[in-house]
Amino acid sequence: MQSAGDSIAARFRYTPGTAIFDYPTRVDLFDDPKRHLQGLVGEISDLQERFYAQSRTSLLIVFQGMDAAGKDSTIKHVTSGVNPQGFQVFNFRQPTYKEIDHNYLWRYWQAMPERGRIGIFNRSHYEEVLVVRVHPDILHARRLPQQDFDERFWRNRFQDIRSLERHLDENGTKVVKFFLNLSKDEQKRRLWKRLENPNKLWKFDPRDINERQHWNDYQLAYQEAVTATHTDAAPWYLIPADHKWTMRAIVASIVATELGLLEPSYPEPTGKQVAQINWAREQLAAEESP
Amino acid sequence: MQSAGDSIAARFRYTPGTAIFDYPTRVDLFDDPKRHLQGLVGEISDLQERFYAQSRTSLLIVFQGMDAAGKDSTIKHVTSGVNPQGFQVFNFRQPTYKEIDHNYLWRYWQAMPERGRIGIFNRSHYEEVLVVRVHPDILHARRLPQQDFDERFWRNRFQDIRSLERHLDENGTKVVKFFLNLSKDEQKRRLWKRLENPNKLWKFDPRDINERQHWNDYQLAYQEAVTATHTDAAPWYLIPADHKWTMRAIVASIVATELGLLEPSYPEPTGKQVAQINWAREQLAAEESP
Repeated sequence: MQSAGDSIAARFRYTPGTAIFDYPTRVDLFDDPKRHLQGLVGEISDLQERFYAQSRTSLLIVFQGMDAAGKDSTIKHVTSGVNPQGFQVFNFRQPTYKEIDHNYLWRYWQAMPERGRIGIFNRSHYEEVLVVRVHPDILHARRLPQQDFDERFWRNRFQDIRSLERHLDENGTKVVKFFLNLSKDEQKRRLWKRLENPNKLWKFDPRDINERQHWNDYQLAYQEAVTATHTDAAPWYLIPADHKWTMRAIVASIVATELGLLEPSYPEPTGKQVAQINWAREQLAAEESP
Repeated sequence: MQSAGDSIAARFRYTPGTAIFDYPTRVDLFDDPKRHLQGLVGEISDLQERFYAQSRTSLLIVFQGMDAAGKDSTIKHVTSGVNPQGFQVFNFRQPTYKEIDHNYLWRYWQAMPERGRIGIFNRSHYEEVLVVRVHPDILHARRLPQQDFDERFWRNRFQDIRSLERHLDENGTKVVKFFLNLSKDEQKRRLWKRLENPNKLWKFDPRDINERQHWNDYQLAYQEAVTATHTDAAPWYLIPADHKWTMRAIVASIVATELGLLEPSYPEPTGKQVAQINWAREQLAAEESP
């Protein structure tokens, strides 16, 4: 069951031992990426319908990337054909007091997709080894049992995450992770554009400019996180993000591939259900015409 | 700002003093309802973007109707252009033990839309005066303080619901309620079709056939609920449901009208934000070219 999508998935899947810096931020892959995306949206919609009907496994899709990498719009486009009852998007912002009073994985647990559902994390538990790694100050405010945020601390967090994702996989939740790989140059162009468009100003956060000063620290943090947590149970895909439509089409293609690998199919009625169906037909047939 | 949508909203809005039996289950309204719907989906998408950006009010859309009235597919079509981060669909099934241990409105409170968001209830708190009214047995299992489910009991529930919806309206959540008005004949046709399509069998529930035996009880329960809870703060719309595409287009038209009445607009940057924007521009301009 080899398809064009399988080779796209293979091409952008992280290869252990490589550096994320070596992955392209721009590729030219489709004659008409917008149209290509449309076809994939239909494919995902069909797969999802069976997936929802079967209601046996679930899919967790993680989106990570620098600000303005296009996470929001990619999520919107890739899910545009999916029945809204079959998926949910979670945005993780600043944790609440209640969340801080629990351990750092607690709030992500609350958002895990039910059987038959697709859960989408717009930013995710990976922020716990990214933004807080670049700004350890944040951790000092969290009243953790540890006070030293040394190598061992981060190694433990990576192990936590691998264990979580292994557990999810073993229990029927496939995890797929996308790093939207944007160039620093293209980010500048997008932030600039955002500042010029009165309808986009509401999205502007001055912290985005500050974070940009830490670009290399983030790249290093991503490098370590991807290396430490890429597994067959929960693979990372590094998606060139400088061209938006191409990025969306690549992501859609990989989502279709991964959903296809779960082989969703409409459930066969059981013996009891067959009897109920026959009974229902008799009931309806026996009704007087209204 | 009178538009075609306004007159559609007026036409299908419940008129106090009338009987729901007098409302049509089928109308012929659009030359090409599918295409008309597409235009409305774009309109809703634009309105929702501003609504989300402004993040000041929220919209709660309630869908009620007999089984196979088309709630799921209407929700899917009407929201197909909306950013999935801006809305969420809630399905209320059998309450859990935890929910039963709270009062009957508790679980609906958990699902109320945040500012800037559209919440969609696929079945809703109205089930608490519909299915349980037709089958009071259900209430006996709920360990309520009351044991008599008499006139007064239902009058109290209606008052609770009116109070809840008034409170929501006062605090920035507009409530819009759709009753998808299906004929008994058309339901029979759809249930039959469902039983014939192997890809739809998973949706079949033998209880649907039982509920059909209580058709008139449900109509009476709807009549009372609509009459008692139709207010300007939270109006009911009675939508002819026998023709699916026409129904979807009418619902989309009313959603666009109601969202438009909230007059969503991109927020103006405050003085502080203008200063931050200027600072950000300077920062970006001062960067060395990479």
